Amino acid sequence: MKRTAFFISDGTGITAETLGQSLLAQFETIAFSKLTRPYIDTVEKARLMVQQINAAAEADGARPIIFDTIVNREIREVLAESNGFMIDIFSTFLAPLEQELTAGSSYSVGKSHSISANSNYMERIEAVNFALDNDDGGRTHHYDKADLILVGVSRCGKTPTCLYMAMQYGIRAANYPLTEEDMERLQLPAALKQHKHKLFGLTIDPDRLTAIRHERKPNSRYSSFAQCEFEVREVENLFRRENIPHINSTHFSVEEISAKILVEKGVERRLK
Amino acid sequence: MKRTAFFISDGTGITAETLGQSLLAQFETIAFSKLTRPYIDTVEKARLMVQQINAAAEADGARPIIFDTIVNREIREVLAESNGFMIDIFSTFLAPLEQELTAGSSYSVGKSHSISANSNYMERIEAVNFALDNDDGGRTHHYDKADLILVGVSRCGKTPTCLYMAMQYGIRAANYPLTEEDMERLQLPAALKQHKHKLFGLTIDPDRLTAIRHERKPNSRYSSFAQCEFEVREVENLFRRENIPHINSTHFSVEEISAKILVEKGVERRLK
Repeated sequence: MKRTAFFISDGTGITAETLGQSLLAQFETIAFSKLTRPYIDTVEKARLMVQQINAAAEADGARPIIFDTIVNREIREVLAESNGFMIDIFSTFLAPLEQELTAGSSYSVGKSHSISANSNYMERIEAVNFALDNDDGGRTHHYDKADLILVGVSRCGKTPTCLYMAMQYGIRAANYPLTEEDMERLQLPAALKQHKHKLFGLTIDPDRLTAIRHERKPNSRYSSFAQCEFEVREVENLFRRENIPHINSTHFSVEEISAKILVEKGVERRLK
Repeated sequence: MKRTAFFISDGTGITAETLGQSLLAQFETIAFSKLTRPYIDTVEKARLMVQQINAAAEADGARPIIFDTIVNREIREVLAESNGFMIDIFSTFLAPLEQELTAGSSYSVGKSHSISANSNYMERIEAVNFALDNDDGGRTHHYDKADLILVGVSRCGKTPTCLYMAMQYGIRAANYPLTEEDMERLQLPAALKQHKHKLFGLTIDPDRLTAIRHERKPNSRYSSFAQCEFEVREVENLFRRENIPHINSTHFSVEEISAKILVEKGVERRLK
């Protein structure tokens, strides 16, 4: 069975999308066609949305699910006239919050992902730059400024994890690839030793690693199962021997890996 | 006035955090101390959370606001015994959705940001790799595979925007810096001409650009106001002459810039 879902917002649509994705993920038997529609901030745009919603309702033979975070009541009322089923996020929760906080909501549009809402905006950009500048062991002399240093074999997921932690939390995460040479010496590279308390290890199933490396360098020694299996085994031994906390990235998303690392290392988000 | 807010989840906490941040941003007069607590997935962990919540309640002299996406009812009930004010996201919306979809929720933990929920997981990692491989005009021979190519002066925000679009939407975005040399020729670099329909311009206020460049290379010609002002003016002229859609990144977050670009270019997210 197919249903359409719309994530509609007067801002970026990220809140509607995030909550909508979470709720829809609980209905595994239904195939949802998901459409994000940001910046629906006038009555006219809302009227055009109603046409899209009604067209989807007709095509599906069922009401589309609408997740909306529209602040303006007039615009929301236009959407409410569509043939969609509305999950009205702000109107559900703002009233009880106003009561609890004994404060009025500002009912201002697009607050949550705006630059003004985040006084630490530059901190985030700097964290992204830090991740890029300290990617792949390229530089090690800024490790004193790192919140974390991810270590693991090449292509185990270090870079996307560092970038995600920078974007989402403002965490400064460097990463250092443990190469074959390091493994034969069977000890931590000198650049890492003095920052051992910042290290977190990523590991990965050898067959998954083989597939990922094969995409980059097909039919190479680098992407052979034997090489991948050897590297993973040696690095996992190193993690255990050196008592470096680590997780296997194979079955976790970047979000999950990042959240697990923060819990395990007791690091708090820098973006408030 | 100070209040504490907890974003509590049995998974990554991202949904609770995103919705909570959005709602709290509407209360501008209150200073919130925000704490994310992922992987609260046992009754024992929930009991420890209750202690933290109650300690915050005592310190603040007011109930902490709890945004939770905990699926397990038993764990949620433990939290409900705390001195917090609960905004119970899943329990509010799952019942009406079950009725509308005439399907039972799977009530499974940590679905929304798990690897299994996202069949396009590899697509996302590839999009991140695409952004990294095609950053800063380093390579241009893969532009036929790009969804978008961001252009603008050095340090106007191209790279973080490309990375964000890759992470959030799975969009393959390359970026190409318009350097002084290109500006004097007053035409689009050859590598970009054939992909003109994929171009999107970023511009920035010269004083903001000066500040950002000064962080990287203090007291250089590159970071002088005169140079920044010249580059921005020439590039904005180029955008207008060549009819390249563009926005000024100065007052927008990476999320806002990304959402605006997708709307303007009519590009749909690749991650479903």
